[in-house]
Amino acid sequence: MEKQELMYEGKAKRVYKTDSAGVLWIEYKDSATAFNGEKKSEIAGKGQLNNEITSIIFARLKEFGIESHFIEKISGYEQLVQQVSIIPLEVVTRNIVAGSLANRLGLEEGTRLKQPIVEFYYKNDELGDPLITEDHIEVLEIASLQELALLKQQALKINDILSKIFLELGVRLVDFKLEFGKDTRGAILLADEISPDTCRLWDKKTNQKLDKDVFRRDLGDITIVYQEILNRLKGETTHV
Amino acid sequence: MEKQELMYEGKAKRVYKTDSAGVLWIEYKDSATAFNGEKKSEIAGKGQLNNEITSIIFARLKEFGIESHFIEKISGYEQLVQQVSIIPLEVVTRNIVAGSLANRLGLEEGTRLKQPIVEFYYKNDELGDPLITEDHIEVLEIASLQELALLKQQALKINDILSKIFLELGVRLVDFKLEFGKDTRGAILLADEISPDTCRLWDKKTNQKLDKDVFRRDLGDITIVYQEILNRLKGETTHV
Repeated sequence: MEKQELMYEGKAKRVYKTDSAGVLWIEYKDSATAFNGEKKSEIAGKGQLNNEITSIIFARLKEFGIESHFIEKISGYEQLVQQVSIIPLEVVTRNIVAGSLANRLGLEEGTRLKQPIVEFYYKNDELGDPLITEDHIEVLEIASLQELALLKQQALKINDILSKIFLELGVRLVDFKLEFGKDTRGAILLADEISPDTCRLWDKKTNQKLDKDVFRRDLGDITIVYQEILNRLKGETTHV
Repeated sequence: MEKQELMYEGKAKRVYKTDSAGVLWIEYKDSATAFNGEKKSEIAGKGQLNNEITSIIFARLKEFGIESHFIEKISGYEQLVQQVSIIPLEVVTRNIVAGSLANRLGLEEGTRLKQPIVEFYYKNDELGDPLITEDHIEVLEIASLQELALLKQQALKINDILSKIFLELGVRLVDFKLEFGKDTRGAILLADEISPDTCRLWDKKTNQKLDKDVFRRDLGDITIVYQEILNRLKGETTHV
């Protein structure tokens, strides 16, 4: 497999073409960004941690029957994925009130929801990735109602699996963001990444934040807590 | 009927108890506010115009089978209404892209939607009346899914009726906000007001704004355009 020209550079990853049709070469960056890019930092080692964590999680999800774009990890910072056309939605599933949900509804962070909820945000940096409703998604012609129902169903299924995986590691899955894409046949496939950048993960005993909120809220060194998540996923029992 | 103590003072109205159980006395104020109260002004005559317009519209809706809290107009600035417990939702129905929808989705103001859409905003000044989803409404325990379906159905039915009424007057109903309340038996009833404060109304020929955007966007004297709406509703054919 040969890395070819850069196709796209996002806030956290660079995406390259390869000499194999339909296969992309992803390079995880050490950049940390928050608040729609207003807060930025370079954090040595972060890209490698997210590449490793995402690779493990996508592989675990596959064991549970959840297909994704992930093919294989090829180096510390790199992985190969199947090319898909990303649906411009951030699909957020929440188990516990935190972050923007606490702010929007005036609820206390940490309140467990009676049942998980799924939200859709319009992936559009210029507009600040706004919350949108199913009606808005129809207006924007981003997805059909049938596709939306599928996205919701997949998000809830992945939530069940991931919540259990993390709980066994002593971690509560508070909320997380997924992205999906369509392959050349129009089939919907889980894409992007699943890492402490895209999940809120709280230690079950101490409620310590083991995710990007450590960066957002200046709570310490994120590489320490991301490493902790990676260690637990690998079955190593160090605790921060 | 005797006016008794002030029960509540909002941005646009004062609500008094009366000596008749279950009947409230509403006094429309001359205050104009926008952007969650950040922009304010006193505009002589505005309260009277909205009281008259709302009274006519609620009476017309009743002819079409839509019940509301409205009982009768008792003076220029005042009307009697049935007491209801307001559901803290702003139910917004949209036919044409404008205002916050244009900003949220990055669509051009004036684009006609393929079909009307209904949005729910959480009536909460402190939180800035945020857009919320049906899942959020369930979390907040504001309304059941069944009640939500009823609110949506009512909003779309009222949209059909109002759109036709205004179109006959040479006015396009771009969007509008409704509020609903529950009576003592828990039945849902249309409440609050329907006026150029709560609707976007564009002249069909010229696209001139005949609504609160004239105040929001400093486009002129709102009493002139509100008077124009009132004249047309009364069958008087002056044009601004």
